[in-house]
Amino acid sequence: MTDYVQRAGDILAKINDLAAISEDATGITRTFGTDAFLAGRQRVQDWMEQAGLPTRVDAIGNVRGRFVSSNEGAKTFVIASHIDTVVNAGKFDGPMGVMMGLDLVTRLIQSGRTLPFHIELIAFSDEEGVRFHTTYLGSKVVAGSFDNALLAKKDALGITLAEVLQTIGTDPTQLLSDALAPDEWLGYFEIHIEQGPVLYERHVPVAVVTAIAGQKRVEIAFAGMAGHAGTVPMDMRQDALCAAAEFVLAVEQFALVHKNNLVATVGKLTVVNAASNVIPGEVSCSLDVRSNDTDLLETAYLALHELATSIGANRLINVNWNLIQETAPVLCDTALTDLLAKSIRESGYEVIPLVSGAGHDGVPISPVSPIAMLFVRCFKGISHNPLENVELADIAATLRVADTFLDSLPEQYY
Amino acid sequence: MTDYVQRAGDILAKINDLAAISEDATGITRTFGTDAFLAGRQRVQDWMEQAGLPTRVDAIGNVRGRFVSSNEGAKTFVIASHIDTVVNAGKFDGPMGVMMGLDLVTRLIQSGRTLPFHIELIAFSDEEGVRFHTTYLGSKVVAGSFDNALLAKKDALGITLAEVLQTIGTDPTQLLSDALAPDEWLGYFEIHIEQGPVLYERHVPVAVVTAIAGQKRVEIAFAGMAGHAGTVPMDMRQDALCAAAEFVLAVEQFALVHKNNLVATVGKLTVVNAASNVIPGEVSCSLDVRSNDTDLLETAYLALHELATSIGANRLINVNWNLIQETAPVLCDTALTDLLAKSIRESGYEVIPLVSGAGHDGVPISPVSPIAMLFVRCFKGISHNPLENVELADIAATLRVADTFLDSLPEQYY
Repeated sequence: MTDYVQRAGDILAKINDLAAISEDATGITRTFGTDAFLAGRQRVQDWMEQAGLPTRVDAIGNVRGRFVSSNEGAKTFVIASHIDTVVNAGKFDGPMGVMMGLDLVTRLIQSGRTLPFHIELIAFSDEEGVRFHTTYLGSKVVAGSFDNALLAKKDALGITLAEVLQTIGTDPTQLLSDALAPDEWLGYFEIHIEQGPVLYERHVPVAVVTAIAGQKRVEIAFAGMAGHAGTVPMDMRQDALCAAAEFVLAVEQFALVHKNNLVATVGKLTVVNAASNVIPGEVSCSLDVRSNDTDLLETAYLALHELATSIGANRLINVNWNLIQETAPVLCDTALTDLLAKSIRESGYEVIPLVSGAGHDGVPISPVSPIAMLFVRCFKGISHNPLENVELADIAATLRVADTFLDSLPEQYY
Repeated sequence: MTDYVQRAGDILAKINDLAAISEDATGITRTFGTDAFLAGRQRVQDWMEQAGLPTRVDAIGNVRGRFVSSNEGAKTFVIASHIDTVVNAGKFDGPMGVMMGLDLVTRLIQSGRTLPFHIELIAFSDEEGVRFHTTYLGSKVVAGSFDNALLAKKDALGITLAEVLQTIGTDPTQLLSDALAPDEWLGYFEIHIEQGPVLYERHVPVAVVTAIAGQKRVEIAFAGMAGHAGTVPMDMRQDALCAAAEFVLAVEQFALVHKNNLVATVGKLTVVNAASNVIPGEVSCSLDVRSNDTDLLETAYLALHELATSIGANRLINVNWNLIQETAPVLCDTALTDLLAKSIRESGYEVIPLVSGAGHDGVPISPVSPIAMLFVRCFKGISHNPLENVELADIAATLRVADTFLDSLPEQYY
């Protein structure tokens, strides 16, 4: 019998080891292409090699280890997550998926079995997109959707992505040929922390992801009339903050009605030239709407726009609505997701289908491969924060589920 | 017949002349004790002297001209306003009252009459309180309520009020003796722009002020739980901005119900560590409530505190409520106010009794003297802004009302 707790302990040791490699002395920060990033990547590559996986670093800096099938013409099943971090990050977001993937593949290697497909274990070099304000650099290369225009992007110091690739010793001309061709993909599997509170609140260690939510981001400006807080009677006001407040509550109300398939958030709100004795004349705010349901996302977007317009009209407030970003929902593969659900059930846990509200590398992978994900419970849903935590027992529970899943894959596919 | 339009033109010329004396080249800024302030004060003193008023500068820098009665033991009727400004001010707020006062007194001097009381025309040196963050420095000295502790107050550069008084050549030891004793006061009269939109909306040039509103200023902090905008379901959130938005609308609703006697404003609202993809965990905002009615002000304060508390309780949001300033309502003198209303009516205008939502020098004067004020219509209610404007015709209309008022004062008092 495999000792899941011992394997989880080994994974946790590696996670801690990697977390100690940081751009700053007091926190965890490993953004793309920095010295800390290079040192961390080397550590991960060493671990893969020690486990008996032949590895290489591709043109975008991903570490890629292959467990090769003896089958002629075999397809490739990718297990992956990322090893870059946000600034002042937690240690689980990304690295946990890579370390668990390494453990899973190690077990397969050690079992002496031969598989009817290749497995490629990938540590993506950039998922968070902190340095160049563009996410998924690593997975876009593997998916074959990397746009060479990105090479001209500059970081905060004016250094281009092309220059960074030169510094870290990779060859930008290889970016396109480092993709797995669409007919090579068998599937994509990632383990990630939930980054939300559902599993924590429901006391379940692991869940299957059914979709990655689509998102629309809007910037809205409410323009009324500033005035003296003491001298303008209540019924002569055009208070932009009151209009914005009405909108904030309308957004919440709409999202609560559709709470099973949608979240909506006003995260930023700024009163322009604010003073305690001045009636707000101008307020700007953000709107972030996410859903796994393409139609609902569109319906919500139109309904909230309509609500903003009508709030403005009622209050004689001018409303400027500006869509600044949108991504479509991505569905996980039904067959793989069913298999993960079955593996969770067989491991003795309640099956909770979750929609990921955060983006993941599966998004750029999805056009070329079926994708599947497991979410692991994290402490109070806290992420992108040094307080981010995952219990050893939950890593162990997830290993058991993933072992079951991987062992049933050959039947699934052949 | 007096030519009101010609007199108004002369007043407007002086207002424009004074406005050109500023700390900055592009706007109007004359804060207490600056070179521009001194130059402006000298100009005003020269005008008073040219009109035949003997003047002096008192210890706080007020210019005080006296039209002396031949009556032994006569009391003093004060006509005043201020000549300091906010930063990037309009040209009417303050100076208009001084220039009109000078015109009114000039007419009385030129008429050759002797009055049964002294008139003191005062150009207060500091009403706005911009430099030392404390209002009414000038009128507090005349009212006898100047607190010598204020002398240690420092401006943004660390210069104390005592040092400024030395620089401008006045004698701080005279501050207390520069007060008019309580038994010397006959009354206090000020003409000021409305700084609100009521007269503009109602097409009336001038109105009598019945009270200066009392005010309570509160700072409120809403503390919930920050979280990822994509991963925390709607019914698991503790969104501090939603709580604050509910409060903003509750404040508006409450004030609308009591709109004839109260205004309430949330002018500042800040989302702490705001990001479009983060559920707001902490929001702070201001509350400014004003009323002419002491009981209603207190009732409103308690009701809004109760509303904030209950909104917080319903949403599991911690609410921190902090009263940071309060002033009591000040009532204008009934007899003087009735006389002003009569003068308005006799001049052919509708009588609109207004409550001043902004503070004025009458506030510190009120404990020692009956006070009365006229408000003059201003363009769209705009004030503290270069767009501040008063029509020549409205100054003329107000002169007529004020002449009538002053001519009936001797009967009123003796």
